[in-house]
Amino acid sequence: MNIHDKRLPASVTTGPIGASRKIYSAPQGRDDIRVPYREIALDASSGEPPLRVYDPSGPYSCESFTPDLSAGLPAARPWLAARTGLESYQGRAVKPEDNGFVEGDRLVPPCPAERQLYRAAGTAPVTQLEFARAGVITEEMIYVAHRENLCRERAFDAAKARIADGESFGASIPEFVTAEFVRDEIARGRAIIPANVNHPELEPVVIGRNFLVKVNANIGNSAVTSSVAEEVEKMVWAIRWGADTVMDLSTGRNIHNIRDWIIRNAPVPIGTVPIYQALEKVGGDALKLDWEVFKDTLIEQAEQGVDYFTIHAGVRLAYVPLTASRVTGIVSRGGSIMARWCLSKHKESFLYERFDEICDIMRRYDVSFSLGDGLRPGSNADANDAAQFAELETLGELTKIAWDKGCQVMIEGPGHVPMHKIKANMEKQLKACGEAPFYTLGPLVTDIAPGYDHITSGIGAAMIGWFGTAMLCYVTPKEHLGLPDRDDVKTGVITYRIAAHAADLAKGHPAARERDDAMSRARFDFRWNDQFDIGLDPDTAREFHDQTMPKEAHKLAHFCSMCGPKFCSMQITRDLREEAQAIEREKGMAEKAEEFVERGAQIYVRG
Amino acid sequence: MNIHDKRLPASVTTGPIGASRKIYSAPQGRDDIRVPYREIALDASSGEPPLRVYDPSGPYSCESFTPDLSAGLPAARPWLAARTGLESYQGRAVKPEDNGFVEGDRLVPPCPAERQLYRAAGTAPVTQLEFARAGVITEEMIYVAHRENLCRERAFDAAKARIADGESFGASIPEFVTAEFVRDEIARGRAIIPANVNHPELEPVVIGRNFLVKVNANIGNSAVTSSVAEEVEKMVWAIRWGADTVMDLSTGRNIHNIRDWIIRNAPVPIGTVPIYQALEKVGGDALKLDWEVFKDTLIEQAEQGVDYFTIHAGVRLAYVPLTASRVTGIVSRGGSIMARWCLSKHKESFLYERFDEICDIMRRYDVSFSLGDGLRPGSNADANDAAQFAELETLGELTKIAWDKGCQVMIEGPGHVPMHKIKANMEKQLKACGEAPFYTLGPLVTDIAPGYDHITSGIGAAMIGWFGTAMLCYVTPKEHLGLPDRDDVKTGVITYRIAAHAADLAKGHPAARERDDAMSRARFDFRWNDQFDIGLDPDTAREFHDQTMPKEAHKLAHFCSMCGPKFCSMQITRDLREEAQAIEREKGMAEKAEEFVERGAQIYVRG
Repeated sequence: MNIHDKRLPASVTTGPIGASRKIYSAPQGRDDIRVPYREIALDASSGEPPLRVYDPSGPYSCESFTPDLSAGLPAARPWLAARTGLESYQGRAVKPEDNGFVEGDRLVPPCPAERQLYRAAGTAPVTQLEFARAGVITEEMIYVAHRENLCRERAFDAAKARIADGESFGASIPEFVTAEFVRDEIARGRAIIPANVNHPELEPVVIGRNFLVKVNANIGNSAVTSSVAEEVEKMVWAIRWGADTVMDLSTGRNIHNIRDWIIRNAPVPIGTVPIYQALEKVGGDALKLDWEVFKDTLIEQAEQGVDYFTIHAGVRLAYVPLTASRVTGIVSRGGSIMARWCLSKHKESFLYERFDEICDIMRRYDVSFSLGDGLRPGSNADANDAAQFAELETLGELTKIAWDKGCQVMIEGPGHVPMHKIKANMEKQLKACGEAPFYTLGPLVTDIAPGYDHITSGIGAAMIGWFGTAMLCYVTPKEHLGLPDRDDVKTGVITYRIAAHAADLAKGHPAARERDDAMSRARFDFRWNDQFDIGLDPDTAREFHDQTMPKEAHKLAHFCSMCGPKFCSMQITRDLREEAQAIEREKGMAEKAEEFVERGAQIYVRG
Repeated sequence: MNIHDKRLPASVTTGPIGASRKIYSAPQGRDDIRVPYREIALDASSGEPPLRVYDPSGPYSCESFTPDLSAGLPAARPWLAARTGLESYQGRAVKPEDNGFVEGDRLVPPCPAERQLYRAAGTAPVTQLEFARAGVITEEMIYVAHRENLCRERAFDAAKARIADGESFGASIPEFVTAEFVRDEIARGRAIIPANVNHPELEPVVIGRNFLVKVNANIGNSAVTSSVAEEVEKMVWAIRWGADTVMDLSTGRNIHNIRDWIIRNAPVPIGTVPIYQALEKVGGDALKLDWEVFKDTLIEQAEQGVDYFTIHAGVRLAYVPLTASRVTGIVSRGGSIMARWCLSKHKESFLYERFDEICDIMRRYDVSFSLGDGLRPGSNADANDAAQFAELETLGELTKIAWDKGCQVMIEGPGHVPMHKIKANMEKQLKACGEAPFYTLGPLVTDIAPGYDHITSGIGAAMIGWFGTAMLCYVTPKEHLGLPDRDDVKTGVITYRIAAHAADLAKGHPAARERDDAMSRARFDFRWNDQFDIGLDPDTAREFHDQTMPKEAHKLAHFCSMCGPKFCSMQITRDLREEAQAIEREKGMAEKAEEFVERGAQIYVRG
C-alpha cells in the first residue's frame, strides 16, 4: 500500500478543546487503567482548582498527540490479550462484496493496522454480562466506575444531598460509583459496556440509567469518498464535541475498508446496522436477503471490532398490518426492509427466527445488542400506537433470550412523540424490557419544524433522559431534509450534550452540577475566558462574545454587551452583596427579613 | 420633517412567507373585525384544502402591502373611536430627556403619523378586565376568539377527543373558543388582552393558559442608530417568524422617538420596562430615581400606546438580603436597579409603595401589568430559592390589588431552573397569583452552554408551556454573550415557536395537531414543497434540502437524500401499505395479527 495514496490520511482535527488540558487518571493500584478527562484551568482570581469534565474525545484532544491513522490508536485495553476465555484465530477473508465489488483505483485500501483477532474459545465468561454474573469485576468495570465519578472524592454527604434534591423516577443513582456497583448493574442487565473483544482501542463507556446519560452521533459515508481521513474525521469531529458512541450507517462502496479505518482509530464504541450491508451484498433487493448473508455480515463486522449491532428482530410478520393505517407508516430503514421481506414472503422474520444464533455469534465477540425499533412512530400522530408497543413487547421477550445467552442488550426507542406521551414510553420500556438500557432517537415533540429538528428532538431527548433513558441518539438540523455537514454534526452533538446534561442535573446526579456552578461563579465574577472554556463549545462562545466586544480588554470587563457598563445587573449585585452583608452584620437585617416573610409579607403600604 | 432624511424609512421586510397567502376572516356579522391568518396552499395531489395557520406577522406578509412607516399601519381596531368611557385630550409634550437630550442632526425625527389620544374619562369600563366583569363582550374579545379557533368549525367531538388525548394539568381548554369564553377568562383574571387604547394598529392577542401559548421577542436599539427603518425592521422581522408580542428594551438616545415609530407600525402588543427609561432620565444613577420621574415616564409611554409594562414592584427591601448568599445574586436589570435603590436608601421600594397610583395610571390607558420577577434565579444553583418565592408571593398580593383597580395582569417568571424544579414554579405561580397568566423567560435547564441558550431555554420553555405558562419570552443564541443579530432573532423566535407549539400539542389544544398531521402526510407523500411551506421556516428547510438535492426534479422525488432511492423507507412503506391492504382484504390478516398480539405474541420460533 502506498502511504502517499491521495485517499490516505492527511489529517484529522487535533489539539486541546478551548483552554482545557487532557489528563489521564488511574484508579488506585491500577496503573494499566488510564481514564481520560479534560481539565479546564480557571483564572487565578477564582481561587478554584481546575474543573474536571468527562471526555469522550480520545487522544485527539491531547496537545502532544499526532495521529497515525495507518497505525491506529494505541491500545486503551492492554489487558485484553491476557483475558482467558478468548482464543486467537485466523479471521474471515475479505470478500469482494464486503466493499460493494469496488476494484482497482476506486477501492479504498484496507487499514494496515494489524491486530490479533479474538473470539470466545468456549463457555468461559467472555462478555461483560457473563463476567458480572460470575462475580468477576473486569478492567472495563473498574475503568467506567472511575470515569463516571469525574475524580470526585467519596463525599457521600454532599452526594446524598444532590441525589435527594433531584427526581430520578425510581432510578438508583449511587453516591459514589464503585466497580462493584457497575458489576451489579451489568449483572442485572440495567447497564452495558459495549466493548467488542476486537476493539482494543476503545476507552470503555457504561450505558445505563444509573450512570451519566450518554449521546450517540450517526455518521455515514459520502457518495464520493475523497479520502480516508475525511471519513475518519467525521468520527473524530463528533467525539470532539461530546459524542460518547458513534454509529456508522454507511452504505454502498468501500464500506468494509472504511469501517476498518474508523474502528482502528476510534476510542469510542462503534455501532452499526448490519442489515444495511447485508442488503448491499444482495444488490439492494430485500427479497434476496437470507440468513446466510446476514450471518456472514455479522461475523465480518464482529471481527472488525464493532461494539454494538442494531438488530430489528422485533419487526414481526404479524405486526406489519398494524402499520397500515398509520399517517407515516414505517419510517425506520431497517424496519421497512424487514417488513417488506416478511410481507412479500409471508414468512416470519429470519432475524426473529434465528435470534438464538444471532446471540451465539454476538456473544463470542461481546458485541452488544441494540434491539432496533423498526416500527417507531414517524409522526406525532403515530406515537404510542399498537404497532410500536407490540414491537416493544417483543423486544422485551428477545432481551430475556439474549441475556440467557450471555449477551448485553439495550433497546432502541422513538422517534416522534408529543411531550405528554414520552413518560409512558419510558415506563413501558422499563417494564417490558426488564430495565435494559433505553436508547432513543430524540423524540421529536412536534413535526412542524424541518431545519430545526435538533431542537424539536432535543426537547424530547432532555425529557426522556430525565425519565430514565440511558443514551440519546442525536438528530441534526438536516434531519428530514438532507445529509448533515460538519457544522450540522457539531450542532447536533452539542444540542444532545445539553439534553443529556439537563437530564443528569434533573435526576440529581451527584457530579452534574459542578460544571453549572463553576460557570455561574465565572459569570458572577465576569471571568469571561472561564465562561467560554467551561462551556460545551468554547469556540462559538468566544466568537459570539467577540462579535460585540472584540477587544482583549473586554475579556476582563466587569459587564457585558447586553446591559453595558452602566446598567450591569451582575455588577450592581456584587456591590449590593457587599452592602447587604455589611448591613446584615450591623442590623441583623436577615432576621428581620425572615420574620417579615414568615408573617406573610402582607404589609402593603398604601400610597 | 424631511421625508428624504437618510435616517428615515427605506424599507422593512415584506412579502408572503413561503408559499402562503395572507387572508382576513371576519366573525359572522362583524365585517369590521378582520382577523388575519396565513393560508398555506398544498399541492393539488394532496387533495387537501389549504392549511390555515395563526399569524402574528401583520400586513407585512401580504403580497400587496407596501408599508409607509411615516403614516403607520392602518387601524386594526377602528371601533376604538366609538368607545364610550374614553375621552380624547391633549397629551404630554415631549421633553428633551425623553430622547436622552439628543439634539440637532443626531435626533431621530418623531414619527409623523398622527393619532387621536385617548384615556379613561371616568369610572366607566375602559380596560378589557372592566368590560369583562361588567359582562360586556368587546370587539377585542370577539377578535381573539375567532383568531384562536384558526377557522375550525365547531367540531366538538373531534375537539373533545384531542383534549382528552392531551394532558393539560388542570387547565380548561374549550372545544371551541367563544367570545363569551374569552370574556369569562378575562373576568377571572386567567387571561389578558394587552391592548392600550392608544394602539389602534394592534391586532389583538389573548394571553392565557386556556389559549394557544404565545411567544415574546425582545428588541433593543443599537448604540448607533443608522436608520429608523432598521429599528422598525427588528420588530417586523421578529413577528414575521412568529413573535406574538415584542418588548422594546431600548435604552439611551432617541428612545422616545424610535418607540413612536415602532408602535405606529406594530400590529402586535408592545411591552416595555419603564424603569429603564426613567433611569436614563436621571443620568443612570439609581439613587436619583423617584416617583415623579417614574410616573412621568409611565404616562409618556402609555400615551404612545405601549400595551404592557414590566413593573418590578415585588423587589422589596426585606428581600434583598435573601439574595446575598446566591451564586449569581440578582440578574434582572430592573431588579438590581430597585434593589440598589431600596438598600442604599434603606427604604421600601417606591414601586411597591406607590402601586395603587401605578394602577390608576395604567388603568386609564388599559396598559397591562407584566409584574416583573426582579429576583429570578440567574443560575440553576439559585432556582426556587427563598428570594424568588418571596417575591412571587408579593406579586400575588399585587395582582389582587391591580385586579381591584381594574387592571389586567400577567406575571413574569424565571430564568434558570433545572427540569425537575420547573413544575413547582408553575404550581406556585398559579396558586400565589390566582391563575393570572404566567410569562416566563425560558427557563434555561442548564448553565453550561453559552452560544446555545436558545436551546437550553427552549427545553424549559416547552415544558413550562405545557405545565401552564401562557407566554414564553424568547432567548437567542447570543444570550450571556452579546447582542443578537438578525439571524439570532430569527433562530430565537423559531425555537420558541417550537416550544409553544409542542406545549399546545401536549396540552391537547384541539387545533394544534392539524399542522403536524398536514406535515406528516406531506412527508409520507414526498410532497417536498408542501413540507417546506407547512414548516415554521420554509426558507431554511428549502435551502437545507437543496444543499444535497438541488434540482427542481428532486422536489418531486419519492425519496430523500438520507436513504437515497434504493433504501427509502417511506417509499417501501407506501408499497407495503398497498400490499398489506390487499393481503388484509384477502386473508383477514389483521384479525390474525390481533389474535396473535392478544395471545401475547410469545411464540418464539427457535432456530
